[in-house]
Amino acid sequence: MSLVVQKYGGTSVGDTGRILNVARKVAATHGAGNQVVVVVSAMSGVTDSLIKLARDISPNPTEREMDVLLATGEQTTIALTAMAVNSLGKKAVSLTGAQAGIITDGVHTKAKIANITPRQIQDFLDEGYIVIVAGFQGSTLEGHVTTLGRGGSDLTAIALSSAIKASVCQIFTDVEGVYTCDPRVVPTARKLDEISYDEMLEMASSGSKVMQSRSVEFAKKFSVLFEVRSSFSDKPGTIVKEETMSMENVVIRGISIERNQAKVTISQVPDKPGVASRFFTAVAEANLMVDMIVQNVSFSGTTDISFTLHKEDLPKAKEVLEPVLKETGARELVARDGIAKLSVVGIGMRSHSGVAAQLFECLGRGGINIQMISTSEIKIAVILDEDKIVEAANLAHEAFGLGNS
Amino acid sequence: MSLVVQKYGGTSVGDTGRILNVARKVAATHGAGNQVVVVVSAMSGVTDSLIKLARDISPNPTEREMDVLLATGEQTTIALTAMAVNSLGKKAVSLTGAQAGIITDGVHTKAKIANITPRQIQDFLDEGYIVIVAGFQGSTLEGHVTTLGRGGSDLTAIALSSAIKASVCQIFTDVEGVYTCDPRVVPTARKLDEISYDEMLEMASSGSKVMQSRSVEFAKKFSVLFEVRSSFSDKPGTIVKEETMSMENVVIRGISIERNQAKVTISQVPDKPGVASRFFTAVAEANLMVDMIVQNVSFSGTTDISFTLHKEDLPKAKEVLEPVLKETGARELVARDGIAKLSVVGIGMRSHSGVAAQLFECLGRGGINIQMISTSEIKIAVILDEDKIVEAANLAHEAFGLGNS
Repeated sequence: MSLVVQKYGGTSVGDTGRILNVARKVAATHGAGNQVVVVVSAMSGVTDSLIKLARDISPNPTEREMDVLLATGEQTTIALTAMAVNSLGKKAVSLTGAQAGIITDGVHTKAKIANITPRQIQDFLDEGYIVIVAGFQGSTLEGHVTTLGRGGSDLTAIALSSAIKASVCQIFTDVEGVYTCDPRVVPTARKLDEISYDEMLEMASSGSKVMQSRSVEFAKKFSVLFEVRSSFSDKPGTIVKEETMSMENVVIRGISIERNQAKVTISQVPDKPGVASRFFTAVAEANLMVDMIVQNVSFSGTTDISFTLHKEDLPKAKEVLEPVLKETGARELVARDGIAKLSVVGIGMRSHSGVAAQLFECLGRGGINIQMISTSEIKIAVILDEDKIVEAANLAHEAFGLGNS
Repeated sequence: MSLVVQKYGGTSVGDTGRILNVARKVAATHGAGNQVVVVVSAMSGVTDSLIKLARDISPNPTEREMDVLLATGEQTTIALTAMAVNSLGKKAVSLTGAQAGIITDGVHTKAKIANITPRQIQDFLDEGYIVIVAGFQGSTLEGHVTTLGRGGSDLTAIALSSAIKASVCQIFTDVEGVYTCDPRVVPTARKLDEISYDEMLEMASSGSKVMQSRSVEFAKKFSVLFEVRSSFSDKPGTIVKEETMSMENVVIRGISIERNQAKVTISQVPDKPGVASRFFTAVAEANLMVDMIVQNVSFSGTTDISFTLHKEDLPKAKEVLEPVLKETGARELVARDGIAKLSVVGIGMRSHSGVAAQLFECLGRGGINIQMISTSEIKIAVILDEDKIVEAANLAHEAFGLGNS
């Protein structure tokens, strides 16, 4: 008998019909001889409605109370899901995050899981119950309700899998798995059977938002093997796991793209220690997320620094950088949007040279200009004009032989 | 410094604007130098929406899960109310029923309060917080969520008032207090300044549904003085308390009416022990609520038994009574709706004779026929044709001098 954790996101439990669909999948898994723990999110749209209610009350609602409010979203889903499973003749019981023993720190609206005491879950499993746990939420040791922030339900599923030593953790979502590239962009994109944690992390941070990075990082840290698959089909999805020797035979696992980027270049920054940090401190204090940062070697005592960020954050970034520009004596700030990022990812590139050359060559052949380049051990990312991104993705997908054969 | 418990019902917290209105009342009470504990219901309509969701899942949803589901209604309100009070610059904190220490038995959807351990409430009060508690809900000793059934939020407020020894418990609702009669029926009806528990109970059980009887019974048992008043005005309401000597000077406190009644008469029932019980057992097993029961003395070895119930329950009642009719050898069952009940209530009638005569006389003068009569120590109830009930209420209101002078 295996112990299976299944997580269903907001779209998968978006209405009562879909909840009944989830219940059938859960019952079937149990019927096949498994113990089953189910983690569910709030029904899609519910969290946004609750946030709207809170904003109607106050522009700056108390964070402790925000957590009490938002936690009702998943509590609604666990009750309905347990009812649905019961209606199929299986024994099911719902547990809130607190009841499931998910203890967090006290940082409301973005709490971190401190530890899990799954005693109640174990007791109910031992009695033959299917246990339905509210994702995204926990409680402090003092009993205050907390929520885990974005991607919190995935995190609940993966942390629970680790705590109860589940055989497998299945993340059900509205896509069929992780693809070599977004199929809406590259029609020949192929679903991957498996991917390593590190590749998944690079894909996630490069725009393939199947899961938040923090859940993948948690899974990597505690070696939780998980599968990303669709709640609307019965096909196997993509297994995310430790890298194996054979994985390195594939040089490039996939390509991710991120649109709506903007680029800021600050020119002739005095090349002295601490100067660059003043720009990025200003940006960080404004709660803006910077993605790629590029600084080239300097020859003349000054240097040019470029970085990218989401285009919506550009006006705010300009506003907070202008004063720093004056203070530091840098020359000027040039900003533009209409750019996009393309990343090729694969642990195999560690042991294969020439990947960068191959990428640049294929883009050059297409007449696509590369504006910035950034690399990690298993990723090469380039910034291009946004109107070239579809063509670039298809060219690279073809060049690295990722399509259906 | 007084300790005040305020309870706001679903209509009073029906939208975010009304929640802000409640917050202003709460903040003003705190600003006047009181410690304040607030009990709130689910926003009006929310509980019904949740029940509808559950029915979409299953015609017969698990009761444990029903409680987990319904408890989200008040949890939403406590969070929003605490945010609203915070936004006015006061310190507020929300507590679910479980967090507030409300321990119940395990009878899901209609749990009884077993005891209250208000340690968290006390701690927060001591730290200067306004404490916002979810009405209608509690938790078993094992930590399962329970709800208290109809009128549960009033019960929470009154039980909490007793547990924390509040100076006063204010039940805010959408009426200005308890009236001598429904002002929509009797235009001269007058708001009562005070009423005894027993009178309030008789009024409640006779159609004046300001509060459920169980909350009044609890208040009586634990001598909790409470005030029923409007959340939409600042006028004082009606104080409900132990009877005092002076209360007996008023013979009749008020008149309540109940429409949509139906009457069933079973004729020539064999007058033997245990026969009557078979009819009422059949009705009770069908979960039908019987109100008035009348049986007259028998002369011929058989007797006629009549009772009243809500007209919606009539078809079901006929269905379950027909087989008993045959078994017992009673002659026939005559049922009709289109009747209503009028009750005059007052603890003063204990020491005053002639109340019944006065009531019958005034109805007779109006040419209104009395179909059934039932009395308790402090109430006389009569069954009339429904189309005469408004006239009857006005006649009785006048006859007992209840109107505005």
